Amino acid sequence: MKTLDPQEYSQKYLTDLAIPHIIYRCVGKYPPEVLEQWIGGKGTDTRYSVFVGAASSSQAVSMSLAQAYQLVSKNDAFLMGGVAIPERHLLKADEHLRVISKQQKGCSYFVTQAVYNVEASKNFLSDYYYHCRREGLPLMPVVLTLTPCGSLKTLAFMKWLGVNIPRWLENELCHSSDILDRSIHLSRQAFVELQEFGREKGIPIGCNVESVSVNRVEIEASIQLARDIKQIMNR
Amino acid sequence: MKTLDPQEYSQKYLTDLAIPHIIYRCVGKYPPEVLEQWIGGKGTDTRYSVFVGAASSSQAVSMSLAQAYQLVSKNDAFLMGGVAIPERHLLKADEHLRVISKQQKGCSYFVTQAVYNVEASKNFLSDYYYHCRREGLPLMPVVLTLTPCGSLKTLAFMKWLGVNIPRWLENELCHSSDILDRSIHLSRQAFVELQEFGREKGIPIGCNVESVSVNRVEIEASIQLARDIKQIMNR
Repeated sequence: MKTLDPQEYSQKYLTDLAIPHIIYRCVGKYPPEVLEQWIGGKGTDTRYSVFVGAASSSQAVSMSLAQAYQLVSKNDAFLMGGVAIPERHLLKADEHLRVISKQQKGCSYFVTQAVYNVEASKNFLSDYYYHCRREGLPLMPVVLTLTPCGSLKTLAFMKWLGVNIPRWLENELCHSSDILDRSIHLSRQAFVELQEFGREKGIPIGCNVESVSVNRVEIEASIQLARDIKQIMNR
Repeated sequence: MKTLDPQEYSQKYLTDLAIPHIIYRCVGKYPPEVLEQWIGGKGTDTRYSVFVGAASSSQAVSMSLAQAYQLVSKNDAFLMGGVAIPERHLLKADEHLRVISKQQKGCSYFVTQAVYNVEASKNFLSDYYYHCRREGLPLMPVVLTLTPCGSLKTLAFMKWLGVNIPRWLENELCHSSDILDRSIHLSRQAFVELQEFGREKGIPIGCNVESVSVNRVEIEASIQLARDIKQIMNR
């Protein structure tokens, strides 16, 4: 299936959406001058982007994440975010340091991978909080990504993507008579728990809902989940 | 410090406690005839015990856990329990099978090691539930052990004992101005979450509170925690 350029998609299909559009950019895909031009951009509105680096250190890229961050530092009207992967924290225990390093290079918010493992997210948020507190660094907003899962196929795909799904939660989904409804219920529950965890520590917690599936039912469920989370945040 | 035999402690100091006393037995410590005599025992009251096996497979023992279970099978008035270690499930993912094997050898309840990792406990309970449901086996009561932690010394000792403490929870304890109070708050929270998890699945959840410290303040806190849990269970 052909993929669309995020900037083009935003301009063509989302102009009616009167909220900031955060454009993702795989920085290694573009020649430096193209990305530089895009960052410089025209117009006076603040622009939002999340830069994504290479999928692995062996991937050939036209520009590193660090070089892209440097381009941004010249433009005050460009609000840059970074990716945070709480699951990586389970193994390497240094995700908070990676995030803080991105913060020092100009990232002012972070968006996570799909969150199904609350424990891993708490571990990351906790280390991020205590490190920033010790070093006197500001706590940037962390936007948690939620993803509905409507079938065993989507579940397998998410695992392939690297989403860590705790054993009990996988059991719940596999044995549910309505896996989509169950995944939404569990995602809401995870968000409430993590929002409260962040609130106690003063970490601004946001939410991003996305569907990793092209299945219509799952896309519609993600829209419903986004509405539910909005309600939870407005409580 | 001299340790007391649990049976002796129960008879000498706990006679006023008009509830069943569950006597722990490290079965490898006794010659077979001594354990056999104890299991046969006198009196008509039902007796309760939890048998504990060797600390490692290389430890020399006078009797294996399997042999001890065989002795019990001759006595109907003897209610035997087994140890469950949810943390082991994180690595080996077979703790539910170990428990079910003990169940088939006559164990009618299980007591866990100290629970600080809710995720590990949920994983174990979930696999236990779905396996029993699939095989048509009864769900035995699982008694969750809670342990107050009043100092960094006790925290280090618990970790040495093999208790798995999630990173975020260790941070909370280390940075708390009142570590004992914080550990009790977090233990209560863990119990409520796991009790609810068991309730949804029809797993009877019990609670055992113990102090791994000889510190008076921690022992008293464990008594308070036991009272709190009793209240939670009676809700």
